[in-house]
Amino acid sequence: MLNTLIRISYDGTNYSGFQFQANARTVQETLELALKVIYKKPVRIIGAGRTDAGVHARGQVANFQAPFRIDIDKLPYALNAVLPSDVVIVEAMEVAESFHSRYDARRKIYTYTIDRAVFPQVKKRLYSFHLPGELDLVLIDQAIKVFEGSHDFKYFQAAGSRITDTVRTIYCIGLEDLFQKQLLHFYFEGSGFLYRMVRLISGTLIRVGKGQLNLNDVQDALAGNNVSAVGPAVPACGLCLEQVIYDFD
Amino acid sequence: MLNTLIRISYDGTNYSGFQFQANARTVQETLELALKVIYKKPVRIIGAGRTDAGVHARGQVANFQAPFRIDIDKLPYALNAVLPSDVVIVEAMEVAESFHSRYDARRKIYTYTIDRAVFPQVKKRLYSFHLPGELDLVLIDQAIKVFEGSHDFKYFQAAGSRITDTVRTIYCIGLEDLFQKQLLHFYFEGSGFLYRMVRLISGTLIRVGKGQLNLNDVQDALAGNNVSAVGPAVPACGLCLEQVIYDFD
Repeated sequence: MLNTLIRISYDGTNYSGFQFQANARTVQETLELALKVIYKKPVRIIGAGRTDAGVHARGQVANFQAPFRIDIDKLPYALNAVLPSDVVIVEAMEVAESFHSRYDARRKIYTYTIDRAVFPQVKKRLYSFHLPGELDLVLIDQAIKVFEGSHDFKYFQAAGSRITDTVRTIYCIGLEDLFQKQLLHFYFEGSGFLYRMVRLISGTLIRVGKGQLNLNDVQDALAGNNVSAVGPAVPACGLCLEQVIYDFD
Repeated sequence: MLNTLIRISYDGTNYSGFQFQANARTVQETLELALKVIYKKPVRIIGAGRTDAGVHARGQVANFQAPFRIDIDKLPYALNAVLPSDVVIVEAMEVAESFHSRYDARRKIYTYTIDRAVFPQVKKRLYSFHLPGELDLVLIDQAIKVFEGSHDFKYFQAAGSRITDTVRTIYCIGLEDLFQKQLLHFYFEGSGFLYRMVRLISGTLIRVGKGQLNLNDVQDALAGNNVSAVGPAVPACGLCLEQVIYDFD
């Protein structure tokens, strides 16, 4: 068996998320169908993590046991030739038998993109959240400090999650204001993120920027003393999984 | 009658170009349907120029005679509320009765975007031409000089055009190399452009960058002495009409 890692870029617009579902089109199913064409037998992939319906990825990672060896440099071309144009393999590499794309992930980087133009920028409409109007970036920057570091983020996850260890470390939340392009990017680098955590934090930060929440509200939200200050989750289309980082990266 | 100018941004992916056609979905038809909803009667628009099937616009312009006055600042919101999300009105203004969006256009700006990444960047796939591999930008820059200025561009237009005056002035062709983003932009500013002219010039410039044509070939192509050095036209999806400039701009 040949444990193989692939890095995947996808436009999540037309998918019900990454992970396989019985009655919906997912990225995982799409990848497994392509692998079956290449390897002539079913191949099951392990994803580094789920992404929600409509969420995009520039560097999602998965691994699978290849039934036989294909020149690893040619594998992306072979897969891309059978994949639809909104799912692209950008790298493939052989990895140790013990490698597991989810368990071995050390860090993840997400971006959230906000379109600040008065009217939506059409080429950005599938990849951003249109939010014109005033936003105080200084206030947002202060609120970011509340989230950075290691915290129990149990109030910043979608209801219904069965995860019990909800402590995560956010190494950095960056704010990039592309004024001329009328785009605002949030950048999240962390040890991992709970379900909807990035979108819920982004939603809270936006309310801070609008003057609807203050720093105390944010601190209380994180502590679970003011759940009405949590979120709401911003739309999926602005979110992108940029990178999954491993020890060998 | 109230002569009204609108600036329009659209994603051309799902349209058979700007101009009305009997049996195809066009941007013009889509705009006229929206205007009919707002004004409760048919409104015919005059576009500043055609764009081909699949070509995008950030600043297309059209004008129309409004049947009655609507607060001009609210008109974009009213129209956008009934337009599909891939066509967006970004500005509306009342103009002189004599204004004609095509005849009065002084300059047009187009960009052509090339995705230089080894594998296509998914979020750019609808808005760029994927062209990995070596391109000599110094050679392209030299060839650009051949096209700048006033020339008879009759060999740089699609066959079948009925236009007789084929002299146009290109004020500037710019080359923007967004190395980190693995994007290359051509920028064309001119008095006007013949049908397919930007895509044919871009195609010739790319062949120069690949070392397939030299400066003499380009000069001969423009003079009509080497039509095999004209184009081929690069794909529509990389092209965007950025701006139409009038005397009042």
